Parts: sequence; structure tokens; C-alpha cells
Amino acid sequence: MTSYATATDRRVHPSTAPFVPGPQIRIEGRANGPLAGLTFAAKDLFDVAGLPTGGGNHDWARWHPVPDKYAWAVQTLLNAGATLIGKTITDEVSLGILGENAFDGTPLNPKAPDHVPGGSSSGSASAVASGLCDTALGTDTGGSVRVPASFCGLYGIRPTHGRLPLDGMLPQAPSSDTTGWFARDAMTFARVSHVMLGEDLPQELPKKLVIAVDAFGFADDDVQAALKPVVSRLTHLIGQSREESMAPQGLSVWARAQRTLQTAEAWETFRPWIDAMNPRMAFVVARNLIAGSQISAAERAWAGLMRMEARARLTHLLGDGAILCLPTTPFPAPTKGQAISALNIVRDRITCLAAHGGLTGVPQVSIPGATVNGLPVGLSIVGGHGQDAMLVAVAKAMEAMS
Amino acid sequence: MTSYATATDRRVHPSTAPFVPGPQIRIEGRANGPLAGLTFAAKDLFDVAGLPTGGGNHDWARWHPVPDKYAWAVQTLLNAGATLIGKTITDEVSLGILGENAFDGTPLNPKAPDHVPGGSSSGSASAVASGLCDTALGTDTGGSVRVPASFCGLYGIRPTHGRLPLDGMLPQAPSSDTTGWFARDAMTFARVSHVMLGEDLPQELPKKLVIAVDAFGFADDDVQAALKPVVSRLTHLIGQSREESMAPQGLSVWARAQRTLQTAEAWETFRPWIDAMNPRMAFVVARNLIAGSQISAAERAWAGLMRMEARARLTHLLGDGAILCLPTTPFPAPTKGQAISALNIVRDRITCLAAHGGLTGVPQVSIPGATVNGLPVGLSIVGGHGQDAMLVAVAKAMEAMS
Repeated sequence: MTSYATATDRRVHPSTAPFVPGPQIRIEGRANGPLAGLTFAAKDLFDVAGLPTGGGNHDWARWHPVPDKYAWAVQTLLNAGATLIGKTITDEVSLGILGENAFDGTPLNPKAPDHVPGGSSSGSASAVASGLCDTALGTDTGGSVRVPASFCGLYGIRPTHGRLPLDGMLPQAPSSDTTGWFARDAMTFARVSHVMLGEDLPQELPKKLVIAVDAFGFADDDVQAALKPVVSRLTHLIGQSREESMAPQGLSVWARAQRTLQTAEAWETFRPWIDAMNPRMAFVVARNLIAGSQISAAERAWAGLMRMEARARLTHLLGDGAILCLPTTPFPAPTKGQAISALNIVRDRITCLAAHGGLTGVPQVSIPGATVNGLPVGLSIVGGHGQDAMLVAVAKAMEAMS
Repeated sequence: MTSYATATDRRVHPSTAPFVPGPQIRIEGRANGPLAGLTFAAKDLFDVAGLPTGGGNHDWARWHPVPDKYAWAVQTLLNAGATLIGKTITDEVSLGILGENAFDGTPLNPKAPDHVPGGSSSGSASAVASGLCDTALGTDTGGSVRVPASFCGLYGIRPTHGRLPLDGMLPQAPSSDTTGWFARDAMTFARVSHVMLGEDLPQELPKKLVIAVDAFGFADDDVQAALKPVVSRLTHLIGQSREESMAPQGLSVWARAQRTLQTAEAWETFRPWIDAMNPRMAFVVARNLIAGSQISAAERAWAGLMRMEARARLTHLLGDGAILCLPTTPFPAPTKGQAISALNIVRDRITCLAAHGGLTGVPQVSIPGATVNGLPVGLSIVGGHGQDAMLVAVAKAMEAMS
């Protein structure tokens, strides 16, 4: 039976819970592991044996069988002793950067309750920021860990593309998909990263810092000002810095290439399900997928070439062990419940500062600490391929300084 | 709380009820009116005071206030003595021609239970065909009364565009929208039509019949064969017939023009709601709306010119009081639950035989009686502007002959 909602909750699903609806779960980690005592949540794109993988869209859960195995990332944390306490809300099939899910609601951003949490790993960021668990798994294809980390004031990592197994993780755009995680403090972030990366953090920090002047110039003035002291500390830690453009071809050109590749691949990923089922989805999600279906071969070929140029550029900047810093997002979290037409430019600007990740596959860590009018905004550090542990070590050293 | 569905109902909402979910309603008509003793249902695009107008999309109902007045069509039937017994399922915001609603289910086609009822007036056709009421209100923009009439074996009318007030009816494409109705037998159809049209049926029948050879040639062979004896009876009734193409420019050209105008207008109609709310809708509905958003001014201008040509053509054919006959649909009801990719050509072919209605505004009545492998298919008669009552009189005379 349909229940017609009252006027008070007519805009979107009114829930602000970070966890998907359903029975509470608690799956204990292995005793005595390195993460013993920690609790974690997993974005509802990761398989948990015996539970539906919801993917943020009720018709996805309806169409797909309940998994009988744990995703690699979930199993890795359980094996290390962390205890799984919930599955978290995601933007529909990870297509979204703001964290407003029309089916499940908008998870609370505890640092900015009238603002979005960021997405698509919205519930994972919300759960960690709210203190409901110590860490949480997310996915990052076009910014889905980095953006909510920035908006919720958390540490968050997008690892080197291809480094970690993605078994049991609902894919979106395979050439960009990664598994990431959040934490409130650098020590927890380092412990979890150590386990997930399977690598000790390096003792020595990088010796060179590149400040991405194009990315800073693209951020709002107050974000630039808020991040200035953080960049100063970072420069002090590394010892030297220089200013360079990250994307000489244009941040918007990189964003265009990434959006082309990502949406074309997302259409390929979801097309069989859509064709067979005609699923219900929020209008903007359908719009995104249809845009993917309409990309010409010529446009996609060009995007592939620009990806090569972008990779060459970052290899040039970071190949000698340097790291690069930029604002994670050009502004703090936007307010909730805005019209589609108002959010188009918001999404596009976020993509301009996030596209390099999916486009080039480099690892990135977003570091919290700065605020604009009380709203968090993150500073990101980017390293060359495989320098994930180095970035975590820098984040840990930064916290020790503050 | 979300309840994850079992595999048995994973494809679409499993309900086959014709009525929208909610409390049962019964609103008595005025005593002693000409329709006293008849029961009717109204497609959930028509306002009924005190009930939400659902529009086939739960987020439409959620966003819009509950009406406090009756739609003109509902009030007209109540005033004439008919009793309202339910609101019926519609394709989402009337965008659909098959009658499969992902939110509310696919109303039963009692003449073909494994097949769709046709849409968008799916529940109204289903309720009448199932004997749950005597007549039911539908809307017809691009075929939404005529197609379910054909698929469910009913009488159905699309009146002359602009003739009947559309107050309290959820619009789609104003230059094509009409209010229509269904009945199982010609006598009831005539009684209801008399009230709705506000006009006596003419005593004299038309003297000329045009057989639309292009439309018959476009229908499946078995549909042509099944309709042949019905056309013979009609020819006998009228006294003479001649064969002509209805659309010399091409049925597919008329369909292209109508699809262009209709989808462009539908986007204008629903854009403010979509922009403000980002509603959930089935993928094909979003695809249809997005197609409307992408129509160029040049394409729309061309479609307007083709509309003028089509109108001139039908004035030429029907201006002297002739009527035209054609298959209502090129085939009987398709099976339920087919993939989107399989249904694209199905929808397009239906539009080729239905587009003249929205494009030119002429009235049309679909007459039941023929079947293909036990599945109903209708023969339609079309008249000049304002000849609605004449078409009803022909339908009544046809039934008297059989």
C-alpha cells in the first residue's frame, strides 16, 4: 500500500541515518588482530555475506542475488580484527557526489547539519564523523571518498588505481574504480591504512612539495585562505615547495575527459540491468547514465588521449618522489535540498578538482583541519603511483605537528 | 524500513490491480441523472476532491497538494448520475503506452493475462474490461485511450482536441492532451458519450468511408486479416469506401513530428517539478523526458510545419463528412515484462498508427471485436474536427449489425 507523505517530508526522503534500513548487524573481527577493538562500517556497494548489496537503489537490491561471500575489503578488515557494525547509505549505484539519496535519505553531516555530507560514500563518512564507528569503507571513482572526507572533516584515501582487489565491490567505471576508507584521526587512519595497503608506513617523508596553483586558484577565495596555514605547515614539514599548475591543459579539460570516460563506462556497467529491469532511479541518476549512453566514439577516443597526457603530466610532477597538494573541494559542503539546476555547476566544479584521480590513477589523501565559516574543507596530498603509504605517513606527521 | 523483495517479484511491481493503492472510495452520482445506475473509475490524473492525484509516480503525489475540487470530467459524470468507485493506475505522468508502472504494477488485461493492458490509461481499461465498473475516464495525448482500448477489447474515444474542458486533469503536452473514456458495449459507450460530449448522437450516418491503406499495410499481416471482416461490415454500413493513404508524407514522418512536439511539451510541463524535487522515476520515463529536453528549436519548428501539413491532409480527406478507418494498433498487446531494448520498436510502431490524433486533433473511436490468436485488436474510425458524436453513432450502428 502506498502511503502518501505529508508536506513536511515531500522534498526527499527525510532520513538522516547513515546506515541502510534493515536489521542491525554486528560481525566480530578476528581476535587479536592489529585492528582489534576498532569498529567499521561498509558502504552498501560492498558484499557482506547473507545481506543484500543494496547499491543505494532499491531495484538494484531487488534484482540481484544476496551474496554468500564477503568483499575483499570487508574480509580484510574482519581478518585484521575490526568489527563490522553496519552497511552505509550510498548515492545510487555510486553515481552522485553530494550524498542525497532519494530512496534512503541524506546521511547527517554532523559538522554541518544543514549541508550535504558529500557522496557517493555518504553514509560511511557520516557514520565516522558522527562517532558511530572508527573507520568505514567507501569507494572512489570520481571523488566519492575524497569529497565526503572534505565535507565531513575526515581523513580519507583514494588508493592507487589497481592496487587493491575490488572483489565483491559493486563496480561503476572499472578504469577509475577504487576502494577507500575514512577515519577521524591520523593514528586510526594510519592503522587501517597499514592493514589495507599491506605495507609499513615509510620512515622518511618526501623531500619535494608541489603546490597546484591552478587548483588553488579554482577554489573559492575563502577556501584558499582557510587552507593557507595548512599548506604552510605542510611546506615546513617537507622542507621546500614550488608552485606549478597540475593540469596545464585545463582542470576543466581533465574533468571533461574523466566525465566522458567514467560515464561511458558506467553506462556499460549498468546497461544490462537497466535494459532488463527498467529500474526506478532519481532523475539526475538517469540523466547521468543517459549522458553516458550518448557519448560518441570520437569523444571517448579523445578522452583516452587526454588521459595519457594527464598521466604523463603527473608522472613528470611526481615521478621523483614529490607530492602535490590541492584543495580537495573548491568549497565546503553545499546546503541540502537544492534544485537540480542549482547543483549542476556545483557538481561540475567539484569534478574539476577531483578528476585527476580517476583519470590518472594516482593515490590521494584528504587531510581535515581547515574550516570556512565553521564548515570543514580538506587539503589533499597526491603522490605518484604506489606512494599511498607515503601519503598516509605525511598525514600522520602533519597531525603530530598540530 | 526497506523490505527487500524476493526473486519472484524482482522484475516489476507484481500487482495486477487496476486501482491505485489506498482506501476504497465510493462517491455517489446525482440521483436520477441520465447515467444513474452506472459506475465509473477515473485515471489517477484526474482530481478527486480530498484524494491525492497520484499521476502514477509516488513523488508526484508527494510533491503536490491534495486537490479540493473535482476535475471537470469527474464532476460531469457525477452530475449525470454515475457513481465513482475508484482511481486507476496510469503510466507515470502519462508517459507510457504499454501500461507497466514500476511503482504500482501492471493492471491485468483480462482478455490477455500475460500481456500488457496498454497505457497510459492502463487501470481504467483494465477496470472496465474486468467488469469492475461500467465506464472509466482516461486521457489520450499520443494514444493513451486508443491503445489500451485496442489491447483490452473495449470501446474507447479520443475526442476532438480542445473540445472538452481539461480542468483538474494533470497535463502532459497541452497541444495534444484530451480526455477520453472506455466502455465494454456500444450502448453504454453511447450513453456516456452523450453526456460527456453534451450532444445528441446524429440520426444520419456518414456517406463516405476512407480506408487508410498505409496504416493497414503497416499493421501485422494477421491484424490486417482479422480486421478485414470488420472493415467489410463498416463498408456495408456506410455504403461505399475508397482506399487512400492517410499520411502521404509517411506514417513514420507524422510519428516523428508528433513525438517531437509531445516530448518537448512534456519536458516543459514537468521540468519545474523535476528541477525542484529530483523525483524517482522508471528509467524509460526519465529517458523520454530527457529526449524532450534535447530537442532543438529547428527540429521543433519542423515538427510544427509537419503538423500543419498533416492537418491539411486530414481536412482534405474528412472535410466533406467522410470518415476514415485504420487499425488502432499494428499488433495486439505485447507480452509483459520485456526488456527496454525489445520494446523500443514496439513503442515506435504503435506511435506510427496513433500519432495523427495528437498531431491533428481529430476525434477517433476504437471499436472492439476482432482478435488475433485470441488477443483483441481494435478497428478505429476517425472523423473531422467536431465529428465525435458521429463516430459514436457509427460504433453503435456497427454493434447493432453484429
